[in-house]
Amino acid sequence: MAQKILSSTESASSPISSGTGWLRLSSHLKTRRPSPRVLMIAISNPPYNLLDGNILSELKRVLLALHPKATGAVILTSAIEDIFISHYDVGEILSFSKLVPVKPPASVVRGLLGFESWAAWAGFRGLMRRTPLAPLSHLNLYHEVTELLRSIPQVTIAAINGRAFGGGCELALACDYRIMVDTPPEGKPGIRGSGIGQPEITLGLIPGGGGTQMLARTVGPAKALDLCLSGRLLPASEALELGLVNQVVSREKLNQAASELAKRVSKRSPEAVACIKDAIHHGATLPIADGMRREQGNFGLSSLCAESNVAMQTYLQHIDSLLGPKSSMDDYEPLLEGDFVDMTPGGAKRELGKAPKKGKRS
Amino acid sequence: MAQKILSSTESASSPISSGTGWLRLSSHLKTRRPSPRVLMIAISNPPYNLLDGNILSELKRVLLALHPKATGAVILTSAIEDIFISHYDVGEILSFSKLVPVKPPASVVRGLLGFESWAAWAGFRGLMRRTPLAPLSHLNLYHEVTELLRSIPQVTIAAINGRAFGGGCELALACDYRIMVDTPPEGKPGIRGSGIGQPEITLGLIPGGGGTQMLARTVGPAKALDLCLSGRLLPASEALELGLVNQVVSREKLNQAASELAKRVSKRSPEAVACIKDAIHHGATLPIADGMRREQGNFGLSSLCAESNVAMQTYLQHIDSLLGPKSSMDDYEPLLEGDFVDMTPGGAKRELGKAPKKGKRS
Amino acid sequence: MAQKILSSTESASSPISSGTGWLRLSSHLKTRRPSPRVLMIAISNPPYNLLDGNILSELKRVLLALHPKATGAVILTSAIEDIFISHYDVGEILSFSKLVPVKPPASVVRGLLGFESWAAWAGFRGLMRRTPLAPLSHLNLYHEVTELLRSIPQVTIAAINGRAFGGGCELALACDYRIMVDTPPEGKPGIRGSGIGQPEITLGLIPGGGGTQMLARTVGPAKALDLCLSGRLLPASEALELGLVNQVVSREKLNQAASELAKRVSKRSPEAVACIKDAIHHGATLPIADGMRREQGNFGLSSLCAESNVAMQTYLQHIDSLLGPKSSMDDYEPLLEGDFVDMTPGGAKRELGKAPKKGKRS
Repeated sequence: MAQKILSSTESASSPISSGTGWLRLSSHLKTRRPSPRVLMIAISNPPYNLLDGNILSELKRVLLALHPKATGAVILTSAIEDIFISHYDVGEILSFSKLVPVKPPASVVRGLLGFESWAAWAGFRGLMRRTPLAPLSHLNLYHEVTELLRSIPQVTIAAINGRAFGGGCELALACDYRIMVDTPPEGKPGIRGSGIGQPEITLGLIPGGGGTQMLARTVGPAKALDLCLSGRLLPASEALELGLVNQVVSREKLNQAASELAKRVSKRSPEAVACIKDAIHHGATLPIADGMRREQGNFGLSSLCAESNVAMQTYLQHIDSLLGPKSSMDDYEPLLEGDFVDMTPGGAKRELGKAPKKGKRS
Repeated sequence: MAQKILSSTESASSPISSGTGWLRLSSHLKTRRPSPRVLMIAISNPPYNLLDGNILSELKRVLLALHPKATGAVILTSAIEDIFISHYDVGEILSFSKLVPVKPPASVVRGLLGFESWAAWAGFRGLMRRTPLAPLSHLNLYHEVTELLRSIPQVTIAAINGRAFGGGCELALACDYRIMVDTPPEGKPGIRGSGIGQPEITLGLIPGGGGTQMLARTVGPAKALDLCLSGRLLPASEALELGLVNQVVSREKLNQAASELAKRVSKRSPEAVACIKDAIHHGATLPIADGMRREQGNFGLSSLCAESNVAMQTYLQHIDSLLGPKSSMDDYEPLLEGDFVDMTPGGAKRELGKAPKKGKRS
Repeated sequence: MAQKILSSTESASSPISSGTGWLRLSSHLKTRRPSPRVLMIAISNPPYNLLDGNILSELKRVLLALHPKATGAVILTSAIEDIFISHYDVGEILSFSKLVPVKPPASVVRGLLGFESWAAWAGFRGLMRRTPLAPLSHLNLYHEVTELLRSIPQVTIAAINGRAFGGGCELALACDYRIMVDTPPEGKPGIRGSGIGQPEITLGLIPGGGGTQMLARTVGPAKALDLCLSGRLLPASEALELGLVNQVVSREKLNQAASELAKRVSKRSPEAVACIKDAIHHGATLPIADGMRREQGNFGLSSLCAESNVAMQTYLQHIDSLLGPKSSMDDYEPLLEGDFVDMTPGGAKRELGKAPKKGKRS
């Protein structure tokens, strides 16, 4: 996957948003770096932070520009208070709905989308988006963005600061991690309707950005059917219980929690991150034998990196203190915290592993 | 999917079982309508409510006859006290077992089943069922019925009123929802052995109606292996904890709970229901890229309905009161309850959306 | 599957390890029989019980030699105190890493592995293992061993007696059941760092023995991503909560708990066990229609066994006492305990079913 982003505009010397303050990157995106290898991207589309084709274009551009030498983790959040993404812009869907006067079979819809994908590949998307076929572009764009989130060598974290319905829930589901603010008690004055879910069916629609696929695979088909058929909106606590989000924190602690997790995982080897993401996001949806081969190929790749080579050598030097009879979980801390060997690209060449902390016992 | 049932015998003007009292539909099926768009089907095969080829034939006939203009949700239950389905008729399996004197490889078994499917398609099933190959018909019929439950544009709800072993557990697993009576305390006099599970292995058999597939996909392979290898029968509380059923209620409240859920979901757009069912039941078992395309096609279809078109227009008129700073979860109620726009076929043309209830605040 | 092991060295008359005491089977494996149809295999590679190519060769040999007439369940455990498998031998991975000076695309890695598989099939693995390509053999061997664990007609149970990182976690995940000792409180003197997980990423690697595939399918992709991207090591209690292990017991009770479970499932029909394992481990990873056909073929096979034939006849004779109004869960005990009909190969011909215990009520 790493090759995909070699032609990027970001580099270690001129990373996107090098400062800790917010930088306006494009019409709807602001970025900042809570720590050197972590990029936080905030979507801003007042008043309701509706997702639309323009935001997807901007998101695609910034994700394609990321470089593993500069960025190891991405936090996706919103710049609007108490709203992550209200939902996808219904007006845009309606314009697509009005475009096609008859109801064609599903195969024709898929064919049209395939044609648009090909036109986009051939460089004609800009042209397409000025025709009535624009909504097809947006639907394809949505899938291209979520596919990028699943395949870039950066760990992606959705910091869900409030309402995440429909397209907002789907965007979060495409990330590797989801951290959500605790839903305020109902009716608290001044707080807008919060929660997470896929209410498309209330308008006679279904999720279109991968919601049925990601939900069914994340929480199982029974819960996915319930959520999509009822359109129920879950408070954060129920989303956590279902496994729809990884962690729930208070409103004040959201950015801190996301930044700490991002900082920790941003120290991982980008090659290993990409290999794990591919093996799980893609491989684990294949028949088991194919999935196993996909993992094997990725395992082979990760073991051939300079970084993993140095890390293995260093590990073997310290194996007795890590596995020996006097070892405890504390000895693993440098490994688990990413402090054992510098795994960032080029880092392994600079240093050859720190000894694990042994001071506590010796 | 909707096309499949166009050649049905049910229509809005003469729906199956228009009354609220029980109607005997066929030898083993009784129906009634707890609310206009909800059809409750009760299986009656005293004394143990064993499932067999005849009941499957009758079930297939009624499912094929349903029309979305008349029916939006189906409740599948039993007419026998404390028994949902004891299990599939073992005598029928034994007759198949005796039919084949040698043990052929699995491919031959699959080949025979394929031949029977083809014969059934060609109109010769009636003939087949008078030959010793009848048990092959029943096995194929089982899969045709569960496949119909997964693909008709009605939401299907199993109201499990007691014992659901083997084939009973599988029939429930093919529905979109499962509501189960609370298992009575062990040994309570007069109450028969209850619970849910796949005890086929205790007779040297394995689930044959999709149990291994539906369990593994619903509760994960580790729990599915445990249940199928041990044959363990779960009380309702454990089934709920595992996610094998969606809800557990007291014996008295089963029909009410199922009817209320059915009434709520029966207001959904049948097109959207069919699209969601297809995307989750089928799409989410495909490799992720194929599943995404399946969802896209379904999304495209659902957005091209007259009903969704009207609903989107209405939504856009009310978006500020739904998403604005003064909105709360209460404002979503008409949407979530299906009262926002009439989504039943033809309904959208009659009315152009009710305004969401704003009385509470204004 | 049964055919695969017909050319085995084990037979009912001379089973592997007939005694109850430990027998050294090969350099790194000890076996004993806690009950007649249960084989316990303990891996011994002091001091850290690292897994390597030699142990995998020995494991493969013993798994291939098992015969369903003699063995119905296998317990996989360790002979080293407080360590199940520390992890796979990093030195072996490093030698592979050093073998290939350039980083080829994943397709080349997969091609090399395919070539080694073919060479092994042609009988040249011994030769291969004396060349620098040996690590490829080990990677393929790992997959062959886990595939055997998933497909042999014996129920496989991992008795996890302590630390199970990386390759140890993967070996356990390939078994049908996982029972784990309770993790001792942190820092307890003399107890080595315990827990279970996939910390490969801390060395820039990813799981290579199926960890990403088995985790994603067992605990879902969201938890699998978290575990593999963070490298977190879970205490037994958290592993249980996630569904990564089936049961947690105290250190003293591990062997007893595993032996009791093994004894119970070892009475099942080996044909039915193989059919269920195939339907769930393999079938349930296929698109739903293919999975259903896979189950149907397996169901057909299991119903054509002499054992299931006898069991069905016996069941039909007793159906009224089992399903009748006076029946309770107690009546199912002989079925669930495997005492109803002798399902071990050849057993059904010897006896024709015991009547269920009715003494309690009559």
